[in-house]
Amino acid sequence: MSARLEDLPLRDDLRGMTPYGAPQAPLPVALNVNENTHPVPQEVADDILDAVALALRDVNRYPDREFTALREGFADYLGHGLSREQLWAANGSNEVLQHVLQAFGGPGRTAFGFAPTYSMYPLLTRATGASWIAGTRGHDYTVSADDAAEQVAAARPDVVFLCAPNNPTGTPMSLDVIEAVYDAAPGIVVVDEAYWEFAPRDERSALTLLPDRERLVVSRTMSKAFAFAGARVGYLAADPAVIDALRLVRLPYHLSALTQAAATAALTHAPVMLRMVDEIIAQRDRIGATVAALGYQPHESWTNFVLFGGVAEPAVTWQELYDRGVLIRDVGIPHHLRVTAGTEEETTAFLDALASIDSRS
Amino acid sequence: MSARLEDLPLRDDLRGMTPYGAPQAPLPVALNVNENTHPVPQEVADDILDAVALALRDVNRYPDREFTALREGFADYLGHGLSREQLWAANGSNEVLQHVLQAFGGPGRTAFGFAPTYSMYPLLTRATGASWIAGTRGHDYTVSADDAAEQVAAARPDVVFLCAPNNPTGTPMSLDVIEAVYDAAPGIVVVDEAYWEFAPRDERSALTLLPDRERLVVSRTMSKAFAFAGARVGYLAADPAVIDALRLVRLPYHLSALTQAAATAALTHAPVMLRMVDEIIAQRDRIGATVAALGYQPHESWTNFVLFGGVAEPAVTWQELYDRGVLIRDVGIPHHLRVTAGTEEETTAFLDALASIDSRS
Repeated sequence: MSARLEDLPLRDDLRGMTPYGAPQAPLPVALNVNENTHPVPQEVADDILDAVALALRDVNRYPDREFTALREGFADYLGHGLSREQLWAANGSNEVLQHVLQAFGGPGRTAFGFAPTYSMYPLLTRATGASWIAGTRGHDYTVSADDAAEQVAAARPDVVFLCAPNNPTGTPMSLDVIEAVYDAAPGIVVVDEAYWEFAPRDERSALTLLPDRERLVVSRTMSKAFAFAGARVGYLAADPAVIDALRLVRLPYHLSALTQAAATAALTHAPVMLRMVDEIIAQRDRIGATVAALGYQPHESWTNFVLFGGVAEPAVTWQELYDRGVLIRDVGIPHHLRVTAGTEEETTAFLDALASIDSRS
Repeated sequence: MSARLEDLPLRDDLRGMTPYGAPQAPLPVALNVNENTHPVPQEVADDILDAVALALRDVNRYPDREFTALREGFADYLGHGLSREQLWAANGSNEVLQHVLQAFGGPGRTAFGFAPTYSMYPLLTRATGASWIAGTRGHDYTVSADDAAEQVAAARPDVVFLCAPNNPTGTPMSLDVIEAVYDAAPGIVVVDEAYWEFAPRDERSALTLLPDRERLVVSRTMSKAFAFAGARVGYLAADPAVIDALRLVRLPYHLSALTQAAATAALTHAPVMLRMVDEIIAQRDRIGATVAALGYQPHESWTNFVLFGGVAEPAVTWQELYDRGVLIRDVGIPHHLRVTAGTEEETTAFLDALASIDSRS
């Protein structure tokens, strides 16, 4: 007979909590967790498999603790004159952010973000012992440079998370906001560019702000643009001193040899993967235009998803879409739902299903 | 120009620390980190590769958060009537132990182990905010049931780590010691069986103690017996309520789809891998007999390595072996060195090199 969780000497701050749980439902059209719904092209998968086969030859040995080839791959991909000494990676960007918090946050410290924002920030912050401070956004989830700097100066957080563009709203954040926050912040400023590849191509990434800003960190992920959510690879670029700090808190050999090999191989196919991103951007813009035509209010998005308002009862609409085989996300913002841009077919399935439901408020 | 680590707002408890750093030196004979020096056999690697190829087909999707197939694989491999609800896994046993500490240790709590023991226990304990308490061992690194229970009852730790057999000494720990510690401990008792497959086959694992002991955890790794150090797969078996607790602290999707596929495939080849273990055991026993004949004092080992005493100056001998192309480990125990049992050729290279050096104390 199994014990109950309450019978175990669990930490007090965990009592009553439930685990993270976006549904992993086997629906035909799953547009709920901002995955890239395009499979990795066969030519890319073949190269990845060759790299994994090579790595398996000495998988009996511990992996390169410094994941040198992978860091060089990221430096090449990102450009901006970055070198491998400025790169870091881990098993998903959540672990990358956890490393940042373990080094610069933790007990007695605080982390800050402009709500609503990525739901893992407060969870990661508290799990590493720090307190979370929620700032506010203005009209349509934007935040101005002056307002942002004022809020950060008042909160004096040890770590600031700027999700740019923002999840779950899709909202872009201009570089002047990031500069103003950096100047106002006493601690580390993380610009989370998980969705950056879906922004307009002529826009400048926060990577351009890295020179002479040793407290600035720009994080990315392979989960979205590289269609690699299953491989769990997040990364960041920063001053080499920041990388030295992260080495103090990572578990030894945290990145497997298979992960290193697969990710390094995938990065060499960046041009192919970015062409797929163009297709997703087209579907995202089609979602925006179509839900607007249906009478909802889509928010501007530089990501692979669209948050739209004007939904009378999100939970009801979510269920009606679910019953039609379409899984999207109720992110808890009143009268809003969030949908990932899928393939053309998946996007059509979502839009047709939504059109068949009258759920405007 | 790069900043210095001291210029960053690093946590105070990390200042002055240096990262974990067993040398990753390209020596012909590397017997320093207790790897399985036998590569994974080609037939097994082929199956793993097929499984990875399949996983790559939907690597654009997040992996199964519950890693169901892998947990079933571990339950089948371990036997003892275990079901998948009792299994957990993470990226290396270090992450498994980190999860245990995040759930049951943390700020204001303590963890305990009988020193000398696995050097990561105190590091993981402190990194998750708890304090480390070092107990003591008796003659030849053994500990009796009475002594162990007395020390644990006095320390009242929230988490106890019993490394069985012990690293870096190789020492077995009998089940009566584990039972006595469990009865004396108020909190979680982790029996770390990382090296269990190298113990005599007719001995009973701590897995046999799991029924009706809801605070008992038995951890294992695929790094050693399964020659899978590069793949980073650790796991544990415990009451399902313990597994529920670990779900609260793991990062979502912490185990990649490639890791899940590769490990699940490797587990189906357990008989092949365990035959390789037999060869390693033979080399381990050969090391013990030969270093004794050379005048050193090997300690009893149920692992894939041998700790031997009687070394006049370990640092000097370590360097002399290094200069002969053989990398072993100075674990910081006066007059001792530790060597991993390699293939027959590697073991011969080590023994020949040692025989050519006069470094007895």
